[in-house]
Amino acid sequence: MKRVYNFSPGPAMLPTAVLETAQAQMLDWDGSGMSVMEISHRSEAFADLLAQTKQLLRDLLNIPSNYQILFMPGGAKTQFAMIPMNLLADNTQANYCVTGTWSELALREAERYGDVTRVLPAQANPDIASIPAQSEWNINPDAKYFYYTPNETLQGLAFPNIPDVSMPLVADMTSCLLSQEIDISRFGLIYASAQKNLGQAGVTVVIVRDDLISAPQTCTPSMFSYENFRDSDSLYNTSPTYAIYIMNLVLQHWQAQGGMPEIVKNNVAKKTLLYDCIDNSDFYTNKITPAFRSSMNVTFNLPTPELEALFVDEAAKQDLLNLTGHKKVGGIRASIYNAMPLAGVQALVNFMQHFAVEHT
Amino acid sequence: MKRVYNFSPGPAMLPTAVLETAQAQMLDWDGSGMSVMEISHRSEAFADLLAQTKQLLRDLLNIPSNYQILFMPGGAKTQFAMIPMNLLADNTQANYCVTGTWSELALREAERYGDVTRVLPAQANPDIASIPAQSEWNINPDAKYFYYTPNETLQGLAFPNIPDVSMPLVADMTSCLLSQEIDISRFGLIYASAQKNLGQAGVTVVIVRDDLISAPQTCTPSMFSYENFRDSDSLYNTSPTYAIYIMNLVLQHWQAQGGMPEIVKNNVAKKTLLYDCIDNSDFYTNKITPAFRSSMNVTFNLPTPELEALFVDEAAKQDLLNLTGHKKVGGIRASIYNAMPLAGVQALVNFMQHFAVEHT
Repeated sequence: MKRVYNFSPGPAMLPTAVLETAQAQMLDWDGSGMSVMEISHRSEAFADLLAQTKQLLRDLLNIPSNYQILFMPGGAKTQFAMIPMNLLADNTQANYCVTGTWSELALREAERYGDVTRVLPAQANPDIASIPAQSEWNINPDAKYFYYTPNETLQGLAFPNIPDVSMPLVADMTSCLLSQEIDISRFGLIYASAQKNLGQAGVTVVIVRDDLISAPQTCTPSMFSYENFRDSDSLYNTSPTYAIYIMNLVLQHWQAQGGMPEIVKNNVAKKTLLYDCIDNSDFYTNKITPAFRSSMNVTFNLPTPELEALFVDEAAKQDLLNLTGHKKVGGIRASIYNAMPLAGVQALVNFMQHFAVEHT
Repeated sequence: MKRVYNFSPGPAMLPTAVLETAQAQMLDWDGSGMSVMEISHRSEAFADLLAQTKQLLRDLLNIPSNYQILFMPGGAKTQFAMIPMNLLADNTQANYCVTGTWSELALREAERYGDVTRVLPAQANPDIASIPAQSEWNINPDAKYFYYTPNETLQGLAFPNIPDVSMPLVADMTSCLLSQEIDISRFGLIYASAQKNLGQAGVTVVIVRDDLISAPQTCTPSMFSYENFRDSDSLYNTSPTYAIYIMNLVLQHWQAQGGMPEIVKNNVAKKTLLYDCIDNSDFYTNKITPAFRSSMNVTFNLPTPELEALFVDEAAKQDLLNLTGHKKVGGIRASIYNAMPLAGVQALVNFMQHFAVEHT
């Protein structure tokens, strides 16, 4: 059996131990004589799995009791509409802080359901190297919420701090939840699709403060109502049971490894190794101002696009895969989510040093 | 390793051979060194898998070239809103033929987006034993489409024929697609969540005639637009990649077994065995008029609710699981989708005969 280092931005690497458990349990989960895929979402066994998954999230992320944890289908693009449809039922004003591709897409969908204020001037170029100081932000004080994307995966740009605003914060943490310690109580709503740090594509975790859940806008589909998912304990429809099971295994894995302190320690070691390699080189460059660099998606350039293409090809020969930057921004992108081992980043750094020497 | 006969209405049994393949490929799919869960939905490998899955559906179901095949998140309840939001953008009239729980739920959601005609009088009791002749139906001739549920899983009630109406037919085939030969060209839109005959929960197949796809109602979320999914070839967002992979394995399995003729032969043998057991007994009764009996969900009663509870418990001891009828209708329900082997139905029938003798 072959295993590679997969630097894909998502769906992304999963811990090998998680895949081994899923493999062992594929035909007979926990002595049931069934795969988790075959278990009814209304069964006691699945209810236990769901409750345990919620508890693992609550423990690992220290989620206060006045926050609901919901599991939903559809990914981030579903949340782009659900958030304004649910949160803008009475007051339709919202602040959107656009710092890259994902927040821009979220803003465009929100504009269809509310009166949106752009916190930062619209960027013609998606490549911004840093985020302006909060004193320069254009914030509508009467808005219902403030939306932002703490980590922009395409650009490799991250907020160094949680914004300090007077209305509930709404954050797309798809590419950073479970990668760093966060104070959940600072937020009104957080969501994350699973396919970066939490598991496989097909389920999204929504962590939402109780008081923000109420009747949505009239035209909202029943499947887009947070109320319906809260009232049914995420069983409003047949839930993506296997995706929730994989998330359960991932969370169990990290809890057994030592929880958030261990995750953070690994992530700091990985990003330090990789950014140091870039900064200590005349061959590789990273456009992002250091304080705003992502810990999850490390973007960099080589002297020419031709060398970048060669770099990707040569890396693939050494089983270092999916290093091409997104077509909107070009260059190289190494996504190093929780499941990427330090050894994988070390292998990439070794390759980078060798490649730089060969092509300088 | 233990394997049981799981009569769950869905998520339901999968072919053991499919689970064995998924197990073998869990850590290294096709020599990639990655699980399918870890593969990017934008990769060439996944594009091939998606194209092959579509082709398998097209071949098995003989889907004409003027029909799109779309893969969507969210299940049937998502389609309950998507259908009116997309199909009722210009003319908001629709016919809904309610014959059980699922069609009633579909109607209620559609009423939020259009002017709905009830084809059959509203039923106070969800247990109807047959469907009135078409000459008695109340059809709005100006409606944009005619919606029905060919197989009602809770009641075990099925349409013996495809309705003959002048407007496009829209059918929820969640519990019957791939279980019988159908003439797709008779339909405007067919959809089926995967967790009965097609795979695991988390993906829904929509088969829709080209000319029915157009700009949806203004308030429709982007994720609820058939246009967006057609234009992106079902990659409008990160698709539920692993659920599509499992569907691919299921379709490959049935194609290798002989395709629809073999599936139909097995299903006829299974339902004949089970209904004959009921009809040849004074102990078991089925409420449905024979012509309207479901091939997938066989509902029946015992003389008393107490005996029904005992029946379920005793059956479970013999690894015949999940035979409790839905709480709305009570009684017993044996769901015998494609993956339930004839040997499973034979084991159930043997148990039923034994139980009847013991308790008469």
